[in-house]
Amino acid sequence: VVVINLASTERLVEEDGPEYATLAAFEAALDADSPAIGPAMLYAYTALSAGIPYGNFTPSVSADLPALVELALRTGTPVAGKDGKTGQTMIKSVLAPAFKTRALRVEGWFSTNILGNRDGLALSNAGSLASKVKTKSSLLDDILGYEVEDHIVDIRYYKPRGDDKEAWDNVDLRGFLGQPMQLKVNFLCKDSILAAPLAIEIARCLDLAKRRGLGGPLEEASVFFKMPMTREPGAKPENALHRQEAILLEWISRF
Amino acid sequence: VVVINLASTERLVEEDGPEYATLAAFEAALDADSPAIGPAMLYAYTALSAGIPYGNFTPSVSADLPALVELALRTGTPVAGKDGKTGQTMIKSVLAPAFKTRALRVEGWFSTNILGNRDGLALSNAGSLASKVKTKSSLLDDILGYEVEDHIVDIRYYKPRGDDKEAWDNVDLRGFLGQPMQLKVNFLCKDSILAAPLAIEIARCLDLAKRRGLGGPLEEASVFFKMPMTREPGAKPENALHRQEAILLEWISRF
Amino acid sequence: VVVINLASTERLVEEDGPEYATLAAFEAALDADSPAIGPAMLYAYTALSAGIPYGNFTPSVSADLPALVELALRTGTPVAGKDGKTGQTMIKSVLAPAFKTRALRVEGWFSTNILGNRDGLALSNAGSLASKVKTKSSLLDDILGYEVEDHIVDIRYYKPRGDDKEAWDNVDLRGFLGQPMQLKVNFLCKDSILAAPLAIEIARCLDLAKRRGLGGPLEEASVFFKMPMTREPGAKPENALHRQEAILLEWISRF
Amino acid sequence: VVVINLASTERLVEEDGPEYATLAAFEAALDADSPAIGPAMLYAYTALSAGIPYGNFTPSVSADLPALVELALRTGTPVAGKDGKTGQTMIKSVLAPAFKTRALRVEGWFSTNILGNRDGLALSNAGSLASKVKTKSSLLDDILGYEVEDHIVDIRYYKPRGDDKEAWDNVDLRGFLGQPMQLKVNFLCKDSILAAPLAIEIARCLDLAKRRGLGGPLEEASVFFKMPMTREPGAKPENALHRQEAILLEWISRF
Repeated sequence: VVVINLASTERLVEEDGPEYATLAAFEAALDADSPAIGPAMLYAYTALSAGIPYGNFTPSVSADLPALVELALRTGTPVAGKDGKTGQTMIKSVLAPAFKTRALRVEGWFSTNILGNRDGLALSNAGSLASKVKTKSSLLDDILGYEVEDHIVDIRYYKPRGDDKEAWDNVDLRGFLGQPMQLKVNFLCKDSILAAPLAIEIARCLDLAKRRGLGGPLEEASVFFKMPMTREPGAKPENALHRQEAILLEWISRF
Repeated sequence: VVVINLASTERLVEEDGPEYATLAAFEAALDADSPAIGPAMLYAYTALSAGIPYGNFTPSVSADLPALVELALRTGTPVAGKDGKTGQTMIKSVLAPAFKTRALRVEGWFSTNILGNRDGLALSNAGSLASKVKTKSSLLDDILGYEVEDHIVDIRYYKPRGDDKEAWDNVDLRGFLGQPMQLKVNFLCKDSILAAPLAIEIARCLDLAKRRGLGGPLEEASVFFKMPMTREPGAKPENALHRQEAILLEWISRF
Repeated sequence: VVVINLASTERLVEEDGPEYATLAAFEAALDADSPAIGPAMLYAYTALSAGIPYGNFTPSVSADLPALVELALRTGTPVAGKDGKTGQTMIKSVLAPAFKTRALRVEGWFSTNILGNRDGLALSNAGSLASKVKTKSSLLDDILGYEVEDHIVDIRYYKPRGDDKEAWDNVDLRGFLGQPMQLKVNFLCKDSILAAPLAIEIARCLDLAKRRGLGGPLEEASVFFKMPMTREPGAKPENALHRQEAILLEWISRF
Repeated sequence: VVVINLASTERLVEEDGPEYATLAAFEAALDADSPAIGPAMLYAYTALSAGIPYGNFTPSVSADLPALVELALRTGTPVAGKDGKTGQTMIKSVLAPAFKTRALRVEGWFSTNILGNRDGLALSNAGSLASKVKTKSSLLDDILGYEVEDHIVDIRYYKPRGDDKEAWDNVDLRGFLGQPMQLKVNFLCKDSILAAPLAIEIARCLDLAKRRGLGGPLEEASVFFKMPMTREPGAKPENALHRQEAILLEWISRF
């Protein structure tokens, strides 16, 4: 058994709340029926308590809390997350390293998304949207090694798109001698079709880790996530897709 | 001194002509004023004879002939090429590996280019165009590991674009369960601005190789080229940008 | 003398407030220093009181109030507005009539804009943004004759775009037998360059109307505006660009 | 009965051949089994001889020859063509008039098409392609009133697009003070779905003309065609979509 969270995105949560700092505090909040404990956290807690590997495919805050990492380590249960890197962000983690390779400075990156399924409808809720924008935004600066001043990520529920998803990106680049250039990407994709095989692979990797006796954050699964969990709390994860793939392949080849 | 070929693209040449097979045959053709010896070959021959490192930034056939590789090895002169990987093809060598990582099968890739400078005007000549289309087309199948049935590369002289260059790419992808998706890229770039820093780096790498006593094809400079020369004649070069970068960095770190 | 309002967009105002219903009420509010009277209204009031033709190039509420139309009629002063139809909305008023001609039903229209000048910065203010989105949104249903359920207009301040402006539109269409199609438009334009000649023409038309003794809303100038003022209060203006042009040319040919 | 030519595009024909100049010459060529008489001409001749209204939905040369217009007039048979204005060219005939309205000078227009059906396959034949490019190219200068120096139309058979069709257009514009701007259009359409309702309307209009006793070129049906036939031989047809629509509506309202 492996548990994968594929539910709709929950509202953004302040992750440094005292309830989340330690397992003891978390369990006290649980006993007190504290509203600080969201559904995604509950499911993660249940799975990790029972020693069942847990993967978070959503932007919701769940196992990526000090309290639950502590639980995962204590019960020797592998845990991975968060937010499947499927479409626009996947492409971003592919192009950004190339811009760095070619010394093309990213002056701005404007990303807009339209999607018409229930996942999109949930993001009409401001709190859920904030969760999503957070996981979609964090990786760019990490890959490039500097802060992109104008990195905007918009997501809009747009019914005609239905189960499909469309991303439009504009990147402003500065090249040699400070000359400006632009690159635009239009991705007409299918959210579930991009997500499903990743969810399956995450489950397989978590199962493999469990069989190998590896508990705690499975950092080697970073290739599947927008905001990968790290073994060291607060460490910078690898975000470039090709390096993440190399890390995963190296890990798998160990067994 | 380092020689870099930055001239306009010459007409496509059958590289397996008997004049090109050995240095002796090449020099005989030279003495006979054979029309088989094009200008780019002449410059390469002159440079390599004099022990001057030579880089070919164009799609023209020059040092990438058995005869001239023999000369480079004999005189211990580094040689690199060919065709600077600046815009559309660079992006192609970035996206294609990612599609492979995500098991998105490339069903077709339509690439069109418009450019208005003299380089573009030269490509109005059918023979020159054939040279260019060849170097732009070869890498996709190598990266993906299968033949893309519909890979079309169009290049058009279009005066209003002036010194700038514009590429529009459409990629048809098949994902999980055979579902179709599309990705489109529009790159508004400046050819010379993308090319100049690569030409400088190629010169620096060739100079470094010369100082280190390394003659023959400098395969480690593949990151700069659309159709990299290999040490082994006829070997498949590395074409994925991120792996080419790793090869170059590893090579540099050796000294 | 002609007065054209080219200032930054003001916050959205409820136009049916009692202060705006009649000239008497407006002047009472003015005497009472009411905060309901915004700067754009003040300038319009001053111009119209002095018999100076007034054009509103911005989305701000100004002369398009019953009170000020009353003033324009009383003083026999021509007035026109509002919000210059320059880029994305201009194109919208060109494509929408064609979709109707071809019986292509518009299922959704997603419009996003990025701009980096002070006009864009002012739109970071939620109230001003609401004004702008309103004038950009109103015309589509009027042209098509039915309500487009998903018509979304986003505007974002994005510094790298500088004085330029970029619009990206996606239109979802239903054709014969209910088959879906998509059309996407990417307009890389320059706001001031599109606006300046319109502002000049508006001034010339207002001056012409003044010379001809025509006071009140100059409906014939609708071709210049996103949300044209009508002679009849509350009447539907013409919004299709080609019909607006015909109306203007017919009007001019009268003199 | 109405005959509509919906067959694949034939090779480009020199329309000023002596065989096409008069009905007598045409019939002599017919009797002599001249290769100058193509299939589309034969069908048109047969229909018009029998007094059956004939519409040419393809770019092939057929009823648009002096000889066959003479026949249509003699037998009092309505005839219309040619080449249904469905996708890219339809949009071109919508945008170009708007650029003229706004005094945006078209410096260049680059149009590329990819399509994967049999119609596309037929266009892989150079002669057929020339026919198609001709009907797609002629209208722009007529609408604008000046020659667009760089108007390029490319069409490519691209199997992954299947029955769908995709057009990508780039337009270079010069605005106020000579400032450059660009507009790009990406139309993801379905050729048959756009064509079928036009073919039906053409049949209905031809039938109406027949019932009203109107023989010869039905210029009022120009809204349906890329290269409309004119009543006066060699006259410039109306090409702007909105004016063509007005002409048709006015014609219909006459009965």
